[in-house]
Amino acid sequence: MNNFKKCKIDLKQYLKKRREVVNQVLNKYLKCNNKSPRVIQQSMRYSVFSGGKRLRPILVLCAAEICGRGGYKKALAPACALEMIHAYSLIHDDLPAMDNDDYRRNKLTSHKKFGEAMAILTGDALLTYAFQIVADDLWVKKEMISELAKAAGREQMLGGQVEDIQNSGCKGKRIKSKNEKTRNVKKINYIHACKTGALIKTSLKMGAMAVNASKKQIKALEEYGKNIGLAFQVMDDVLDVVGNKKKLGKRGSDFDNSKLTYPLIYGVEKSKEKAVKLVEKAKQDLSVFGQKANILKKIADYLINREY
Amino acid sequence: MNNFKKCKIDLKQYLKKRREVVNQVLNKYLKCNNKSPRVIQQSMRYSVFSGGKRLRPILVLCAAEICGRGGYKKALAPACALEMIHAYSLIHDDLPAMDNDDYRRNKLTSHKKFGEAMAILTGDALLTYAFQIVADDLWVKKEMISELAKAAGREQMLGGQVEDIQNSGCKGKRIKSKNEKTRNVKKINYIHACKTGALIKTSLKMGAMAVNASKKQIKALEEYGKNIGLAFQVMDDVLDVVGNKKKLGKRGSDFDNSKLTYPLIYGVEKSKEKAVKLVEKAKQDLSVFGQKANILKKIADYLINREY
Repeated sequence: MNNFKKCKIDLKQYLKKRREVVNQVLNKYLKCNNKSPRVIQQSMRYSVFSGGKRLRPILVLCAAEICGRGGYKKALAPACALEMIHAYSLIHDDLPAMDNDDYRRNKLTSHKKFGEAMAILTGDALLTYAFQIVADDLWVKKEMISELAKAAGREQMLGGQVEDIQNSGCKGKRIKSKNEKTRNVKKINYIHACKTGALIKTSLKMGAMAVNASKKQIKALEEYGKNIGLAFQVMDDVLDVVGNKKKLGKRGSDFDNSKLTYPLIYGVEKSKEKAVKLVEKAKQDLSVFGQKANILKKIADYLINREY
Repeated sequence: MNNFKKCKIDLKQYLKKRREVVNQVLNKYLKCNNKSPRVIQQSMRYSVFSGGKRLRPILVLCAAEICGRGGYKKALAPACALEMIHAYSLIHDDLPAMDNDDYRRNKLTSHKKFGEAMAILTGDALLTYAFQIVADDLWVKKEMISELAKAAGREQMLGGQVEDIQNSGCKGKRIKSKNEKTRNVKKINYIHACKTGALIKTSLKMGAMAVNASKKQIKALEEYGKNIGLAFQVMDDVLDVVGNKKKLGKRGSDFDNSKLTYPLIYGVEKSKEKAVKLVEKAKQDLSVFGQKANILKKIADYLINREY
């Protein structure tokens, strides 16, 4: 199972295989039955199976593989829970009252497909089901559920989303003073660390916790997670500006909504440089694992070289 | 602590005392700090401290008192978690895309006070925090977290809400055949059992589980919970028709939105009779507890005699 020691790992192949595993388990968790209204089951499936990269669950599995000896099986439930929380956050983010996006990954957003009420309830259902999955799983410990709730809650993911919304409307506003720039940098780092970073960091932490990793290992993976999380979001901002609808699968609503973004503060090129530096830092964080961490290093590189 | 054996319990006094305990603990859980944006903390507090009866948490505490020997202390975390989930469900129910209510308990609803985006996020935050509270609590077992997630999820509370929304638009529709009436009775029982009943039933179950109650005790409390949950909702429907804004604290949006309700199928008087019968059944369910259950019997009576 563990082939991380070999230096030459085909990343594409690795990601594809893990994606398949995640999809299979998600499919099992979201199998339609007659225990709830059909429409909510369909809408949950619609959003979860809309072609996501499965970055978060893959990071969960990868962390478990690196820290444990038994592969990734003990981390499958938290992996799927994290993907469901990610899917719920996108559904609610896309709502008319938030980013008002009609498309995501080239498909209609949940509220465009199922109506606004159903989209709100679908997000709620995915969030709730994520906690059920981990609570029902044999390998999940109570402190992992607490970790998940903290990452998704007001002090992390939701806090970032609140701050993001409150800082909409920056377009056209020239950043005049150095002080203003410092304030904005602080804000954008907070937003990104919370809104995107929290779930990515927690993915690595939960994978490690699932296999009883040492404190040192958990700390290293958390640091790596923080850095790639920020790099990932910086690149997302960049792609939102330079990407196009076809590749990104959505129109660049962050730019339309005039949100505070890295390119707005630093410009596109400087933002890219920041992302590269963060990825270098992330790779250094993994030194404790030696060659076993090669795959995570490759994932870090991939995140800033992707086109969507 | 346990004064249930005395036949004469002043219900009003009991409810007041327990409400104070619940409010104190909720206040502690929702204390403002600088770990998340101020506005989300304020909006969470606004909805949780909007003058609710605290029925669900009181039922949690009561079940723990009846089944255990150490009073209600071990059940405080689940009690508060259930109230937060109740509060989140009301915030999302009131949204323009759902019931579109401007007032609840004579106060502006969350989206009217803080805007729609913040209301959605506040609901999300309360739901997430509820799971954090139980996961962090010493006395809560993993199976209790699973129980909570199931009750709040697509197969129970959210399933009821989905069905409720899908059955809006019944006003003016005459119920023509016996078959149609049977179908509607089935639907309304499902909606009520899920949308309101699930959290009430689970309140009793979690209180009992917190003090390691026997299977027989848990079963009895669940049955009681099912019956008072339905009775409570039938009376809510009735009050929505005959109540007024002042007492109910909201306009009767269920009637405006033409939802499927008990009075729509049976008429007001027959609905009241149904509620009385359900309460009688609920009281019989408690026979296993003897006089210790007097307070729960009084609560059952109170639920159908209330004016709001």
